Amino acid sequence: MKVIRTIAELRSEIQDRQQSGYGPVGLVPTMGYLHEGHASLMRKAREMSGTVVISIFVNPIQFGPGEDFETYPRDEARDVALAESQGVDVVFIPAVQEMYPQPTKTKISVAEITSLLCGASRPGHFDGVTTVVSKLFNIIKPDYAFFGMKDAQQVAVIEQMVRDLNMDVTIVPCPIIREADGLALSSRNVYLKPEEREQALVLSGSLRTAQEAIQQGQAATAGEIRAHLREYISRSPLADIEYAELLTFPELVPVEDSYRMVDGDSPVIMALAVRFGRTRLIDNALIQPKVGGSHV
Amino acid sequence: MKVIRTIAELRSEIQDRQQSGYGPVGLVPTMGYLHEGHASLMRKAREMSGTVVISIFVNPIQFGPGEDFETYPRDEARDVALAESQGVDVVFIPAVQEMYPQPTKTKISVAEITSLLCGASRPGHFDGVTTVVSKLFNIIKPDYAFFGMKDAQQVAVIEQMVRDLNMDVTIVPCPIIREADGLALSSRNVYLKPEEREQALVLSGSLRTAQEAIQQGQAATAGEIRAHLREYISRSPLADIEYAELLTFPELVPVEDSYRMVDGDSPVIMALAVRFGRTRLIDNALIQPKVGGSHV
Repeated sequence: MKVIRTIAELRSEIQDRQQSGYGPVGLVPTMGYLHEGHASLMRKAREMSGTVVISIFVNPIQFGPGEDFETYPRDEARDVALAESQGVDVVFIPAVQEMYPQPTKTKISVAEITSLLCGASRPGHFDGVTTVVSKLFNIIKPDYAFFGMKDAQQVAVIEQMVRDLNMDVTIVPCPIIREADGLALSSRNVYLKPEEREQALVLSGSLRTAQEAIQQGQAATAGEIRAHLREYISRSPLADIEYAELLTFPELVPVEDSYRMVDGDSPVIMALAVRFGRTRLIDNALIQPKVGGSHV
Repeated sequence: MKVIRTIAELRSEIQDRQQSGYGPVGLVPTMGYLHEGHASLMRKAREMSGTVVISIFVNPIQFGPGEDFETYPRDEARDVALAESQGVDVVFIPAVQEMYPQPTKTKISVAEITSLLCGASRPGHFDGVTTVVSKLFNIIKPDYAFFGMKDAQQVAVIEQMVRDLNMDVTIVPCPIIREADGLALSSRNVYLKPEEREQALVLSGSLRTAQEAIQQGQAATAGEIRAHLREYISRSPLADIEYAELLTFPELVPVEDSYRMVDGDSPVIMALAVRFGRTRLIDNALIQPKVGGSHV
């Protein structure tokens, strides 16, 4: 496995591997502090690609003022070891100066689907994400790029960008990976104090019980599910709900409270953002439409 | 020469040619109604590339409301014949529906250098340009892309985008091509009534005489040159000046009136936009810094 820090060297390494016939290039873009969620992306990339590149870059332009760019957890040595253990070929770790030798005047923006959920509380965040992802795509020219569904809105935004700009890459969304007790893996989980960590289970718990309620017919409408999610999360005194929403996926159009889940013919996402002190956690679950479901 | 109308067929044709070892791909993006200016781009592309692609697409999203999208001149048969005569390999003529099957939610914006000159009077214009050029780059993956310097700001904006987003393409700016009497070639020249056509010579005339005045030491400062340009153009009763500016190139920072041309160490552009009735014409000339020029 090679650790590469410059764009020129990375381009040349990938070109060499392309010319040697290694086959498709798979990219796993990350901000480092890797966990089992990232490892699952690397395994999927390994399965589908002849060359697996992971990038580790805490991208300053996707952080707003007052957000945690400076304090975002970093552990390069551990990250490199984890990547090696997953059979990664190239780890790209550029300095900020390498990615932004001058402040970028150019931004890529996706309208509409970035104005809600995380986009509402993090203005400019998704512009920073789409801009850096497009830079990585232009540098690495991957055939596949792997993203975790924990950041479901990010997946929807990137898929929209790829479609709108005719980027020649296939986005591969991968399932959320959870701790044994249900907490979705996140590099930011290290911020949680013990009591917060315990109460953070209300996110996955609310989603799981909502799914059960739908399956058992106890919650039929989007309004009932919204109420369930909020009620469940509010049992945690430390939880501060930023949003608990139901939307079509990947179009991200909020569904009406009166919307009956069994009537839907496209997936609906239950999406949560909840703050515990200064730590902001997100989680989500997809509700797939029942083919031939009962239309009462 | 092949005329191709779908993205899928174009991708496949270029891939075939790449695999057959034709070498570098050169792209000349146009809006059609081709003239000798475009022909000069095609010849330059032919010189540098194994595969020459020209695109003909009147891009709706770079036209503002009330601009001439509907009436922009079109003559596909003549365009195809001209491309053939210049040894072009592929002419890509997509329908609007092929390029924008859904209205694009994604835009690429370049800040600062798009807020002045043509960007000031055509809000959103350059976002439309950078977005469609990036789509064409993603579809065609050219090694070189050729742009006329008549649209000097467009060249600066696209070079900025390419640099900021790490696009793997070399932009080749090509000189302005003029009629025998000096008028810069433009597809929009057909809009000019005979009297307007005659008076339109004030654009090139003002630039030529400004250059002479600088060389002969009659105009030393940017302020004097600005005054000269405005005075010269105002001799035409039909001319309505939108701007007559001096800026560094390609940074597009306006130079102060007190700026002494001989002191400069970077190129300065004289950029004009002048309306004749409903027709808006642009022209420009670069003043190269004198190496070892006299510093009084």
